Amino acid sequence: MIGLVGFDGDDTLWHSEGYYQVVHEEFERILGGYLDLADARVHERLLATERANIRLFGYGAKGMTLSMIETAIELTGERIGARDLHRLVELGKQVLVHPVELLPGIRAAVEAVARDFHIVLITKGDLFHQEAKVARSGLADLFHRIEIVSEKDESTYRRLLEEFEIEATTFAMVGNSLRSDIEPVVQLGGWGVYMPYALIWAHERETTFGADHQRVESVQRADEIPGALSRIAARALDASKART
Amino acid sequence: MIGLVGFDGDDTLWHSEGYYQVVHEEFERILGGYLDLADARVHERLLATERANIRLFGYGAKGMTLSMIETAIELTGERIGARDLHRLVELGKQVLVHPVELLPGIRAAVEAVARDFHIVLITKGDLFHQEAKVARSGLADLFHRIEIVSEKDESTYRRLLEEFEIEATTFAMVGNSLRSDIEPVVQLGGWGVYMPYALIWAHERETTFGADHQRVESVQRADEIPGALSRIAARALDASKART
Repeated sequence: MIGLVGFDGDDTLWHSEGYYQVVHEEFERILGGYLDLADARVHERLLATERANIRLFGYGAKGMTLSMIETAIELTGERIGARDLHRLVELGKQVLVHPVELLPGIRAAVEAVARDFHIVLITKGDLFHQEAKVARSGLADLFHRIEIVSEKDESTYRRLLEEFEIEATTFAMVGNSLRSDIEPVVQLGGWGVYMPYALIWAHERETTFGADHQRVESVQRADEIPGALSRIAARALDASKART
Repeated sequence: MIGLVGFDGDDTLWHSEGYYQVVHEEFERILGGYLDLADARVHERLLATERANIRLFGYGAKGMTLSMIETAIELTGERIGARDLHRLVELGKQVLVHPVELLPGIRAAVEAVARDFHIVLITKGDLFHQEAKVARSGLADLFHRIEIVSEKDESTYRRLLEEFEIEATTFAMVGNSLRSDIEPVVQLGGWGVYMPYALIWAHERETTFGADHQRVESVQRADEIPGALSRIAARALDASKART
């Protein structure tokens, strides 16, 4: 009674957040040439700028780079030099060109799931960058459809499920973000396989949703995903029988 | 024998390039504080940086802003001040928030076309910004589908036509760019309605394709679009009969 399985991209199929955190550390190091890092709370200020800019920039490395530039200029009282600002642009480019490294065991897991279910990739962020990562991942051919979206909330998933012509109760989403991958799908009546990643962007941490929900299976590694989906499919069948 | 009509967004449905050109003029004015504009060929240098960055950034205002920052730093030999670089970020934001102003007569023209054909919107650029413009345009409900793509070339149109389950010979595209809207569709066997806009980005000018192609109708104003599509539909019918 599961008709379709969605996979998140960043930090579910391939590593991503680590590249951003390397950039954030380098950002802080550059600002350390202008101010006392102990006082400045550089990360909090950058996150605040990014949050304020999301309604204009959306997600992704280009918006992050522009937010780093703004934050650097503000925090240094316009003292930061053009050479250092140029380094921030280069840091942003570094994120855009990083190689796509799959998580351990993910190819085998996705292939196993694709033998039992139709699968789609639903990834959030910059269209151009996400397309490049999908292409570099070597996984594109396994997916029935690839959807790059600007936000992952209930209305996005509702629209996608309508396009897929699938009931939410027969849809399961696999991802590392409770906020973006699991909560909205479960709220619509669907199912989630939550596979936490070691690193998570502060923005994605903003949820009170618990992974102990009855329609969520938690796994630690990619090779546990097919089993989790089998358990979900069995429970979805039970739930479907109970309704009829 | 026309089953589907596509519309471009920027400078076909709503004004766009003018906002970018205002930003480019302001960019030049800021650089005028550091160098002799008569010698510097600021626009050419910016275009060269944008071209080099497109393979990383794709199209759109965020990439343009980062390219302006890079160009400014390079052209001034790193002498440009943080305050002026901050103004460049603000200029980029200005493009992202500008109101969506429809071209004269476009709503009536799109409504008229929608009475005779299924219509789709195919627009290129930044996902987040294009979604915002589509929403602000008030035209979204007229379109059967809205496709935001990272590039408009033959392979993109081929993929879309497959998704739409439409033969290229029964598809017509309405747009202001020979390079992005007309040439690739005509090369695939489809039809074009070319409506030039007063301003065009230098990048879009790079084509040798002529608007005098037999499967292209040129119009000057939005109210001529429905008539041009009727003529195309009649010729597509003739061509279809000739083949059978």
